[in-house]
Amino acid sequence: MSGVNHQFRLAARPVGMPKRDDWKCTESPIPEPRDGEFVAKILYISLDPAMRGWMREGKSYIPPVAIGDVMRALALGRVIASKAASFSVGEYVYGPLGMQEYAASNGAGVSKVDPTLAPLPVFLGTLGMPGMTAYFGLLDVGRPQPGETVVVSGAAGAVGSVVGQIAKIKGCTAVGIAGGKEKCEFVTKTLGFDAAIDYKSEDVVKSLKQHCPKGIQVYFDNVGGEILDAVLTQITRGARIVVCGAISQYNNTGPVRGPSNYLSLLVNRASMTGMVVIDYADRFASAAREMAGWMAAGKLKSREHIVKGFDTCPETFLKLFRGENIGKLLLKVADA
Amino acid sequence: MSGVNHQFRLAARPVGMPKRDDWKCTESPIPEPRDGEFVAKILYISLDPAMRGWMREGKSYIPPVAIGDVMRALALGRVIASKAASFSVGEYVYGPLGMQEYAASNGAGVSKVDPTLAPLPVFLGTLGMPGMTAYFGLLDVGRPQPGETVVVSGAAGAVGSVVGQIAKIKGCTAVGIAGGKEKCEFVTKTLGFDAAIDYKSEDVVKSLKQHCPKGIQVYFDNVGGEILDAVLTQITRGARIVVCGAISQYNNTGPVRGPSNYLSLLVNRASMTGMVVIDYADRFASAAREMAGWMAAGKLKSREHIVKGFDTCPETFLKLFRGENIGKLLLKVADA
Repeated sequence: MSGVNHQFRLAARPVGMPKRDDWKCTESPIPEPRDGEFVAKILYISLDPAMRGWMREGKSYIPPVAIGDVMRALALGRVIASKAASFSVGEYVYGPLGMQEYAASNGAGVSKVDPTLAPLPVFLGTLGMPGMTAYFGLLDVGRPQPGETVVVSGAAGAVGSVVGQIAKIKGCTAVGIAGGKEKCEFVTKTLGFDAAIDYKSEDVVKSLKQHCPKGIQVYFDNVGGEILDAVLTQITRGARIVVCGAISQYNNTGPVRGPSNYLSLLVNRASMTGMVVIDYADRFASAAREMAGWMAAGKLKSREHIVKGFDTCPETFLKLFRGENIGKLLLKVADA
Repeated sequence: MSGVNHQFRLAARPVGMPKRDDWKCTESPIPEPRDGEFVAKILYISLDPAMRGWMREGKSYIPPVAIGDVMRALALGRVIASKAASFSVGEYVYGPLGMQEYAASNGAGVSKVDPTLAPLPVFLGTLGMPGMTAYFGLLDVGRPQPGETVVVSGAAGAVGSVVGQIAKIKGCTAVGIAGGKEKCEFVTKTLGFDAAIDYKSEDVVKSLKQHCPKGIQVYFDNVGGEILDAVLTQITRGARIVVCGAISQYNNTGPVRGPSNYLSLLVNRASMTGMVVIDYADRFASAAREMAGWMAAGKLKSREHIVKGFDTCPETFLKLFRGENIGKLLLKVADA
């Protein structure tokens, strides 16, 4: 193959909000597959809050991206060359292919995508890692029972939007917390949540009291910070808090804000449990089948926020932290 | 009956560390039992960190003590008069009899004590509420497995001292955190913990790394604050944190210090779960039998820190927050 592969490589560990200079855009030839590898042309790059964590040094559930390495990112591509027995040219693939235009891969963490089942962007959102995070975090960790009230923050985001819809499917009351009127309307009118709370304009504790008259039995936390503390005041006995993320804290230059109201866990015999979606990899396929069924039945809606242009990758990523996306934030890199 | 009953009544809701004026010592006649009641002469009053919470207004697992009411306290007494079918004069009883010299009770929350099984003070400590808290908090919430490392804070206190000993009985490594050399020696030399960390003179994170080379699988938290944050840096995948109390925070005049490092729960798929011992009331008797067996076998040691004199009640209570007790803090009010 001839031609150029552009890649965003990590140039520096960000302090606070990442800036363009924290990556360096490099050029290299489009790779040739080695034995056991395929090469994919990347069509969509997934932009996820977790990527901010991967840029940070220190022990986590996955090693950090090394300085100079291609920035880790989930992406969807089409195989253009293959020396791997199980991947053929023309197939669509989804996995940690990186922030680049072309990727060579040995298939680790990569799954195939059937483009006849759903539009390609859905495989990065509701049928991809964010959807799996919502599914397993809510059902396995949150364990909602019919009639319970499930609150989710980041409710208009890729994970939160799915959490609330699954809660409804399971017979719960779903209350979303999001920033701004447009997101709140999306959550209630488009997705069918019972209520949405605009944390930018409302007193969250007061609104939780209003929309959760029987208190909160399950809280799926994507944001941490003040909102976590507000929810802790309204949980009931035996409540389950799923710690999925804390986007409000990821760009802190000082310490993370710990939940001041955590002793509500004691008073309510409640729990707060962390989850990482990769633990459920062996159940992704069956979860995706169930979710695809809900989508086909009109019970689960998927929304993607698609930005075009590989070069905008760093700036588009920051939309996550500025709350500028509704639904799954994706970068469209090329046509299929 | 004739004679005077002295009572400490809550006079004001404390701000910060309680002071003597937050209670008022009143006199009344020794009560006569009404139908269905007994009257007990109180011999020992239990002084527990939870009492600080009961003085605070606001929703908790139990209503606060009302201003003007006798201060709620667990106590052990001997029945001196009875119009209750199931309580006889001469019997020993343990329950929420209050901070007073004589108590009338209908028996709610009161259990009988067999003084031939153990010295009376043990029934307020290892065989009483603190022992039950340790037993159920560790075994039901912490769920330690043989070979795991259990860390407990407040390790020389009434609850912590039992937690570490049960951890040893269950085949775990037990590491205690306590303040001062004397407490640390008590924990290792008398109680047989594998190690003790003196948070007043050691770097807790560094010492945890040293004594918990395989990380921490169970943490039983009695103190909150900086120590909780230190432990959170050393937990391993699937760790269980039992939130039993947070004595370092009870006298805060500002907000509670939330655990800054709580996102370690996410990274480690760990959980933090609150517990309140009264939930296990229907299993107290069988737990006490098992613990008495361990005591008889020399596997479980009980230590009480006994202060004499009803009038010292407020000042003695404050020893808990000043870390001045080793073992269960009790006030001896009268001879049997």
